[in-house]
Amino acid sequence: MNIFEMPQKLVYGKDALKNLGDCAKQHGDKVLIVSDQVMEKLGYLDTITKNLEQAGLQTVSYLGANTEPSDIYVDEALTLFNDNQCEVIVTVGGGSCIDTAKAVAVVATNGGYIGDYMKDKIATKAPVPLIAIPTTAGTGSEVTDVTVINDTTHHIKMMIKQSAFLPKVALVDPALTLTSPQNVTAATGLDALCHSMESYFSRKAQPMTQTFSLAAIEKIMSYLEQAYQDGSNFEARNAMSLAATQAGLAFSNASVTLIHGMSRPIGSLFHVPHGISNAMLLPAVLDYTRDAAIEPLSEIQHHLHPEETGTSAELADRFIQSVKELCQKLAIPNLKDWGIEEKAFEDALDKMAEDALASGSPSNNPKIPTHDEIVELYRICYTYKY
Amino acid sequence: MNIFEMPQKLVYGKDALKNLGDCAKQHGDKVLIVSDQVMEKLGYLDTITKNLEQAGLQTVSYLGANTEPSDIYVDEALTLFNDNQCEVIVTVGGGSCIDTAKAVAVVATNGGYIGDYMKDKIATKAPVPLIAIPTTAGTGSEVTDVTVINDTTHHIKMMIKQSAFLPKVALVDPALTLTSPQNVTAATGLDALCHSMESYFSRKAQPMTQTFSLAAIEKIMSYLEQAYQDGSNFEARNAMSLAATQAGLAFSNASVTLIHGMSRPIGSLFHVPHGISNAMLLPAVLDYTRDAAIEPLSEIQHHLHPEETGTSAELADRFIQSVKELCQKLAIPNLKDWGIEEKAFEDALDKMAEDALASGSPSNNPKIPTHDEIVELYRICYTYKY
Repeated sequence: MNIFEMPQKLVYGKDALKNLGDCAKQHGDKVLIVSDQVMEKLGYLDTITKNLEQAGLQTVSYLGANTEPSDIYVDEALTLFNDNQCEVIVTVGGGSCIDTAKAVAVVATNGGYIGDYMKDKIATKAPVPLIAIPTTAGTGSEVTDVTVINDTTHHIKMMIKQSAFLPKVALVDPALTLTSPQNVTAATGLDALCHSMESYFSRKAQPMTQTFSLAAIEKIMSYLEQAYQDGSNFEARNAMSLAATQAGLAFSNASVTLIHGMSRPIGSLFHVPHGISNAMLLPAVLDYTRDAAIEPLSEIQHHLHPEETGTSAELADRFIQSVKELCQKLAIPNLKDWGIEEKAFEDALDKMAEDALASGSPSNNPKIPTHDEIVELYRICYTYKY
Repeated sequence: MNIFEMPQKLVYGKDALKNLGDCAKQHGDKVLIVSDQVMEKLGYLDTITKNLEQAGLQTVSYLGANTEPSDIYVDEALTLFNDNQCEVIVTVGGGSCIDTAKAVAVVATNGGYIGDYMKDKIATKAPVPLIAIPTTAGTGSEVTDVTVINDTTHHIKMMIKQSAFLPKVALVDPALTLTSPQNVTAATGLDALCHSMESYFSRKAQPMTQTFSLAAIEKIMSYLEQAYQDGSNFEARNAMSLAATQAGLAFSNASVTLIHGMSRPIGSLFHVPHGISNAMLLPAVLDYTRDAAIEPLSEIQHHLHPEETGTSAELADRFIQSVKELCQKLAIPNLKDWGIEEKAFEDALDKMAEDALASGSPSNNPKIPTHDEIVELYRICYTYKY
């Protein structure tokens, strides 16, 4: 049996934002906007507020989601939501804004503290209708049922996954990604590539997710480099936006694997942006996984280049090679060149491997690593040369 | 801008039915089951009732949806729903059961007469959570936002399309299709083929729907004949079940075209089952449409057989040919051989062409026909020889 969940409505492509007023109006008259000050500076907040007001809606804005989402943000935004008797939430921004908004939508109707949902509290009541509008092509958060919120009392990153955290509507307008700087385009694009590849060969892959994985990989391999080289290339931005959303649909239902499992500890300890730390691990982890994933990797290559002939192993290797070349073109450094000190890295290895295993993601990998193998993989990535 | 809508949850594949209790429990404790007497005889009602009761839910059943769904069924089921203060609706069966249940789910929370929704009434309140369980691999009704209900006062078939009619959950268990007799397997399978092909070359096609169209066509061209030849072939039934659902997701968001537009009048006037009347039209309408659809048809052929070479026109023709061969293997008769009398058919042609055009579907076809061209196409189909 397979279970596939997604937002009931996906609005995407050129001018998707124009649909916002109509979308929101279907769910109520008073809207809480959850965003941050960067979005305000970029003028996105203004655009969105005008769109909603032109549709006859009242708005109130929470712009505090400036760094990694925390329980404090959730509390602040929730107070604003309740004080203004809002009925709908619209969020625009990167993962931080969207994750904060997801938490507010659930806690507003189900009560309690957001951390309760990490333990045994199940959200049984429908959340407040949430319209999620991403401004990067990467996290896929607009279509996933996961939110990551910092518990500021115990300094824990809480990863909470329940159906209720799925947005009601994902509104994906590629024009909002045109302002992504080159390094963000690379990092978020490679994050989406990891989502789509990992979900394809995950032990939890299913027909519906594999369809989306392939659709995403195909676009990313064709367009990420173009979007990176020329951020104003609308066709490339459009393809990457849909690819990131499709990759989100895939991994939200099929899980990620070893790359993401090993990536999170690098992010927590050395503050490497999520997409970059994924990319730093990508080549070595693919090499490690290769023998157990020749079939799925060759299927990907066959999907991308049906005219090519060769054994499954040859096709799989060609795909791995093309991923490495893409990382190189996108100037992904290794961990050492990024500036992580060797001593600090060596000292952290044990804890990083433990945290990676504890996340559960490595157990979805075609080849499941031991603690020591993970340590060894981190070391290879530290000085990896393309 | 593209809008893609689907049920928030899709449960599918082997043993999907085992998930029913868990699914339903998330939405309430009292369940109205909407079904018919054939389902009761097949033992499906019993299985479903037990599943729900084992999860601690109370059930009440409406088994009156025996023929084409009507406003009377909707009233009867709604009364049962209200009298028993139900909170969830589960429907099991073919299109009639599912369409009736969709209408009940919307009217229960939004009020009024079902026919009002055909006019200017928009369902703004969330419908009662509906879990739709199809027993044929064809209509895709479990994932569409359409319901077709007979207005028994004015003898009109009301086709109502609004987001609120989307089921909350589509639960697609291939085991339920194992009892489909050979002619039903052929008719419903070819209905799904039309949904997937028509949605692929529809003027309203979009990237998300085309992904599903291709995923469905691929499975249907590989498995429909097997499911037809040996109804107990689980692998074939499983593939066809998912294909029909994916085709439903595609056409619900990209519309159908000329085949479906011309098919409905044949059904209304001569009581030919929907899937069969589609199939009777398929070859001639594909021939008619070919010149304006060479690109999409060749893309389909390329997707199915990436190793093949040739011009776009050659690839398109090969796909059309393989569809004709499939219809032949499934023993699809022409309209004359089905037993429609020539005089009655000729007399009806004008009205049929009018009704086809009025449905709006022909205007999504790559080549949009005139009234006279539709009449001529009906005539070709009347005596079509493979």
